[in-house]
Amino acid sequence: MFKKKDIFFRTLEEMADTLVVACEYFGENVSKLQDVSAFAKQMKNYETQCDKYTHTILTELNKTFITPIEREDIMALTKSLDDVLDGIEACASRFEMYQIKEHDEYISLFADNIVRCSHQIKKAIYLLTQKKLLAMREPNIAINELENQADDLLRVSITSLFSNVTDPIELIKRKEIYERLEQTTDYCEDVANTLESIIMRNS
Amino acid sequence: MFKKKDIFFRTLEEMADTLVVACEYFGENVSKLQDVSAFAKQMKNYETQCDKYTHTILTELNKTFITPIEREDIMALTKSLDDVLDGIEACASRFEMYQIKEHDEYISLFADNIVRCSHQIKKAIYLLTQKKLLAMREPNIAINELENQADDLLRVSITSLFSNVTDPIELIKRKEIYERLEQTTDYCEDVANTLESIIMRNS
Amino acid sequence: MFKKKDIFFRTLEEMADTLVVACEYFGENVSKLQDVSAFAKQMKNYETQCDKYTHTILTELNKTFITPIEREDIMALTKSLDDVLDGIEACASRFEMYQIKEHDEYISLFADNIVRCSHQIKKAIYLLTQKKLLAMREPNIAINELENQADDLLRVSITSLFSNVTDPIELIKRKEIYERLEQTTDYCEDVANTLESIIMRNS
Repeated sequence: MFKKKDIFFRTLEEMADTLVVACEYFGENVSKLQDVSAFAKQMKNYETQCDKYTHTILTELNKTFITPIEREDIMALTKSLDDVLDGIEACASRFEMYQIKEHDEYISLFADNIVRCSHQIKKAIYLLTQKKLLAMREPNIAINELENQADDLLRVSITSLFSNVTDPIELIKRKEIYERLEQTTDYCEDVANTLESIIMRNS
Repeated sequence: MFKKKDIFFRTLEEMADTLVVACEYFGENVSKLQDVSAFAKQMKNYETQCDKYTHTILTELNKTFITPIEREDIMALTKSLDDVLDGIEACASRFEMYQIKEHDEYISLFADNIVRCSHQIKKAIYLLTQKKLLAMREPNIAINELENQADDLLRVSITSLFSNVTDPIELIKRKEIYERLEQTTDYCEDVANTLESIIMRNS
Repeated sequence: MFKKKDIFFRTLEEMADTLVVACEYFGENVSKLQDVSAFAKQMKNYETQCDKYTHTILTELNKTFITPIEREDIMALTKSLDDVLDGIEACASRFEMYQIKEHDEYISLFADNIVRCSHQIKKAIYLLTQKKLLAMREPNIAINELENQADDLLRVSITSLFSNVTDPIELIKRKEIYERLEQTTDYCEDVANTLESIIMRNS
């Protein structure tokens, strides 16, 4: 089904690598924020890097006739990987805009979930480029489970927020960050769904 | 155009049936909430049931060559039905997260609108599976009208909220619930739009 | 590649014309709001007009075999132009719902950005209908730059909001309007992206 590793697979691997680095940076720093501007700026750098990979793939797609998997799948995969990076970067930028510096246990739990998701995504992408399609099922299932856990975490964290926080502006800030973190795991699930449909159509 | 009723049509009918049951449960209980946890849990059950139907359809689509209508249409229809269930379940879960127990006239009006939408959707789906495509126009028009009414209701309810409610946290809660209820009717309209494009391409 | 100017191109031009008129009306009036209801109503008129153009295009698409560009491109372009109008109308309606009458420098800056976007979109659409595809690159690049500026403006305006505004309800109102204005420029970027993919596939 596939020809030798090409520009599309190489670039998808680079996107997955960047995703892991970005999520790990996020996870390591989000619980000990001293300079929120530097934090947001670094996350923006990762997102810009990912935009460049997206641009490479779109440009190549438009001048290439033969692609290793269907072009719609390459586009969907690229877009969903880009959405994950955009999602986590948008979270990071809110720490700067809202000047959030205190540690928040729920944010750390979400970050941990997203780091795990990023590793599973990387694993799945490398299986794709090694043409081991059926083996992608395992990381896909892991991503779906992580997304379910993030759903539960959203319910618990928002319930806690409305039970405990009385300052409405503080509540607005944290509510948005929890929701954006959970949404980032939804984007991870979109990656898994795209990979699942690639498995189904090609096996 | 169609062969005998198959797994896709049967499952779409089951999704529509579940949708009506879920919306009616929502409508009957939302105005007299005593146990918001039980309410949210029951709505989650309906949503899980709908996920199973979605999974059945996606799995069957990937192993079936001949489908009664175009596979893209089956996918779009399945996704939009699933979105309606997800939308109403997300509303229900906010009653639990925000511990909303008092009656709210606007919420009852939205719920009534959504119950009506669900009946029109069920009517349209059963017309589809009976191959009476042109007859789907009538429920489709009804759904579009209901969505317009929900739009107006959102304007009125949000205007009232900002005029009357001075507690910002109370305002945040109700604003989100009104918006999610209105969004659920947008998802109903997506179902109607998908059905409309099926009519247009097949008649 | 194209046949003589047809119903699709004519209607897309009319959508672009309406978009410019609507955005200019928005920009001229948003900084001197006396009658927010009249303002919201006029914006709703533009949006309704745009819905009619969308309906014309969808109806024609379903009875026409030969289209001047691929039908998926016509649909994507129509949808993204419609999204821009919906976006700016949704902003306008919030001025009425929230009874916002005071001048806000950031809103004026966003409005100015959106007016510029609308002119670039109109320029690009007219180049498309004149079959000057490569020339669309220039307005497309301009739209992308404007969207980046709107992104920066969102960060600055939200940061300022959370630093300066202590009334949470006032903050909720302005936050939503800034976010919706920025989102409208995202919809403008979607138009540019659709046009870019038309360039790439046809040159």
